[in-house]
Amino acid sequence: MSAARGWDEFDLIARLLRPLAGDAPEALGLLDDAALLTAPPGQGLVVTTDTIVEGVHFLFDDPPDLVARKLLRVNLSDLAAKRARPWGYLLNTTWPSAMKPAFVQAFARGLAQDQATFGLKLFGGDTTSTPGPLVLSATLIGLVGEGAMLRRSGARAGDLLQVSGTIGDGLLGLEALRSDDPKLAPLIDRYRLPQPRFDLADALAAAHACADVSDGLIADASHLASASGLAVTIALDRIPLSGPASEWAGDGVDGLITLATAGDDYQLVCAGPTALPGFSIIGRFDVGEGVRVTYEDQVIQVARTGYRHGKDG
Amino acid sequence: MSAARGWDEFDLIARLLRPLAGDAPEALGLLDDAALLTAPPGQGLVVTTDTIVEGVHFLFDDPPDLVARKLLRVNLSDLAAKRARPWGYLLNTTWPSAMKPAFVQAFARGLAQDQATFGLKLFGGDTTSTPGPLVLSATLIGLVGEGAMLRRSGARAGDLLQVSGTIGDGLLGLEALRSDDPKLAPLIDRYRLPQPRFDLADALAAAHACADVSDGLIADASHLASASGLAVTIALDRIPLSGPASEWAGDGVDGLITLATAGDDYQLVCAGPTALPGFSIIGRFDVGEGVRVTYEDQVIQVARTGYRHGKDG
Repeated sequence: MSAARGWDEFDLIARLLRPLAGDAPEALGLLDDAALLTAPPGQGLVVTTDTIVEGVHFLFDDPPDLVARKLLRVNLSDLAAKRARPWGYLLNTTWPSAMKPAFVQAFARGLAQDQATFGLKLFGGDTTSTPGPLVLSATLIGLVGEGAMLRRSGARAGDLLQVSGTIGDGLLGLEALRSDDPKLAPLIDRYRLPQPRFDLADALAAAHACADVSDGLIADASHLASASGLAVTIALDRIPLSGPASEWAGDGVDGLITLATAGDDYQLVCAGPTALPGFSIIGRFDVGEGVRVTYEDQVIQVARTGYRHGKDG
Repeated sequence: MSAARGWDEFDLIARLLRPLAGDAPEALGLLDDAALLTAPPGQGLVVTTDTIVEGVHFLFDDPPDLVARKLLRVNLSDLAAKRARPWGYLLNTTWPSAMKPAFVQAFARGLAQDQATFGLKLFGGDTTSTPGPLVLSATLIGLVGEGAMLRRSGARAGDLLQVSGTIGDGLLGLEALRSDDPKLAPLIDRYRLPQPRFDLADALAAAHACADVSDGLIADASHLASASGLAVTIALDRIPLSGPASEWAGDGVDGLITLATAGDDYQLVCAGPTALPGFSIIGRFDVGEGVRVTYEDQVIQVARTGYRHGKDG
């Protein structure tokens, strides 16, 4: 694309991003029109993509290096849920014309940092300009052994619904930035810098189905159930919460429902026949369809189960 | 991503886009967090991505089905240049909140039409909202036999510089839309609906290096030269032009330089030891570096060689 017409900053962006390809042979030095990928024998490629938009998924004054790392991590979280190991990514960046070089520099530094952390390589991408806000897409490519990929659709009747970590901290981290509530300040990093749960890969060996919690725990659990042709029951009072989230939620169901429908948790929710190390049991899958939410063994009506985005991949 | 928070239109978009995955097993019904790709034995994956932005790469009142098809085609053009055959794609769409359902419907119809034309399948994607203009990214995945991929870097000293089709028609098609010049009207489709040159795959068997003409003929030829560690000479007066472009350019070099630096041609420019069927010979590669532009055998100073965007892939 001849998107850079008249915008000299593209040279700067190119100079800053090109080193991120390093010596990855797949990237062809970012000097070609395309990357050439040859998967190791017996390995499948797991491909997932997410877009984040300034003012929607991150804030105008979020540190640019953390924006870059969040962009990679929301995608890495999908790879972790599929038991794939990170390999490389393509990066589409659409920059406002007023973007400052210092922002781009810090953004590139964040990418480099998480490339090192997660063993990722930049395979290619595209840089364009926009009269609107910054739009960032990353397409992550992971490797998985034949038959080892965990899908949403593998849950079986009788499986336990299980979730890793604590739920709702991403929402409350955002709330901390908006409200300056000091009690929630410890959760800011949970909003800005999610931790993809690759550390749970071994535990997932016994799981039947898995997804990451990005749309909201109730929504993502219901996606597992519907993809598997089953019903799922979720016990609100068994959802694991951090100390600040527990205090924020207080007594009763309303706070719990807010946290369980918020999304941006980037924990893993899975179906497994037995308790998996590192997971909390919060419900079960049964023959049937739909999602049933309980609190102290009473069924609760939940109007919103978290919002689905258009589609995943 | 929980991008759809509060925006019901996402359900509509999901309903419109989901059928595009058809029965592609790789897409997992778009019900999973990721696509699972297993390349046929002996095949490499060629991956390329481009973003187009409303008001930058397409016009607000361009027909939505043609916007969709152009999005696919600017990427397909990269696959054609690499001698890869289309396999599937991921789609990132970032929608203004005021986007009308009829636009999305026509956009999806355009995708379906070109999926059928080029044998493409939708593997996954992400749908988000923005307060800014429509931003569309497609990541195309093609298949290529081992060692068959054409790179930019394969040109050899003595190779002929060759280009397919005619050059500058994309720019003049845009000019036709802006100026209502009836003489240029026949070129509007060249701007709106580029034709990826898969028809030249056999001719490319003898080529040493290839790229598509997206940044401008002179720029893309110079990319071939620099990636190959060579110098290139381009004879302006040998550049193939359509009738309307020839008339528009008139006599002298100025018009030719405009057309040769405009980009958006989506023709193929390549290096080959002999004349390739379907290509015009416009220069040659030699030992050295840099790009030399001539007109009637005189060297011409060209201030701009077309603008590079940040990077390709």
